Amino acid sequence: MKVILYMAITLNGLIAKFDDSADFLTKEESASYVSVVKKAEALVIGKRTYGILSQQPEFQEFLKAGVKVIAVSHTDFELKDPSHQVAHSPAEALELLKESPTVILAGGGILNASFLAENLVDEIYIDIEPVVVGMGIQLFTGLDFDRKLKLLGTKQLSENEIQLHYEVQR
Amino acid sequence: MKVILYMAITLNGLIAKFDDSADFLTKEESASYVSVVKKAEALVIGKRTYGILSQQPEFQEFLKAGVKVIAVSHTDFELKDPSHQVAHSPAEALELLKESPTVILAGGGILNASFLAENLVDEIYIDIEPVVVGMGIQLFTGLDFDRKLKLLGTKQLSENEIQLHYEVQR
Repeated sequence: MKVILYMAITLNGLIAKFDDSADFLTKEESASYVSVVKKAEALVIGKRTYGILSQQPEFQEFLKAGVKVIAVSHTDFELKDPSHQVAHSPAEALELLKESPTVILAGGGILNASFLAENLVDEIYIDIEPVVVGMGIQLFTGLDFDRKLKLLGTKQLSENEIQLHYEVQR
Repeated sequence: MKVILYMAITLNGLIAKFDDSADFLTKEESASYVSVVKKAEALVIGKRTYGILSQQPEFQEFLKAGVKVIAVSHTDFELKDPSHQVAHSPAEALELLKESPTVILAGGGILNASFLAENLVDEIYIDIEPVVVGMGIQLFTGLDFDRKLKLLGTKQLSENEIQLHYEVQR
């Protein structure tokens, strides 16, 4: 199984403002994210990200496409669809998806950091939005680690957006 | 006068670890930074960054090349060379360099944020080091702002390092 972290960030590494808004995301970025998740057919996100995603059109697209969605949370909570599952740790999330060849990890910052700290990520795709924002939620929150990356490629998503693709050196 | 922010960051937007170390910087990145600063002949940095830089070989190179160095600090402090000056604000730093066609702003996070919040930056060069680090000092610290960027170009500095170049939309 390959675990891929896929996130869009500001140039300075924020995934959202402190009120969870991310008005810097573009339709090209959203289209790229939806395409990657639908192709993988498996998505792991934190409880808060699950709540945010469930309000967005991408959520219905993933449901229609039969994407397996695992929400990671210390405690159980009510999911929006009977096909979705709660896992209580990164390892349990991957155990639930053990039949999936590719799994997309897509936030928030606390869950991203847990996966990196436990050395569970194989590749990283980062879409760099053309904006700098002073304060907000960082790509990784709350845990320390240090992982070297190998650059696999770059791609221009739109006039001002760059996508960077890395392999995590393990 | 053109003010250019030039920094190297981890993929997740950190300029150093919390102990000020930045062992992820490469010799290609250092060479690029030295070349840009020597060409501009004018450098603005915070007091703490000045202290760190003064311990490094780049400091002597800048002295030999006659680079004008302004350290920004609320209070006066002892500089390492009589040609260097203290400014008490971003605006005062630029006033001291008003004859310079190009000024490089190069950290730390608090000073970078002050310049962006006061809308004093024209262009940004960011070297993305191939590493993710859980915790450390962010590119911008302590002030909020939101600025759109226009992508001017990308350049591969070494096998795994990408440089991104933006214009700040003002």
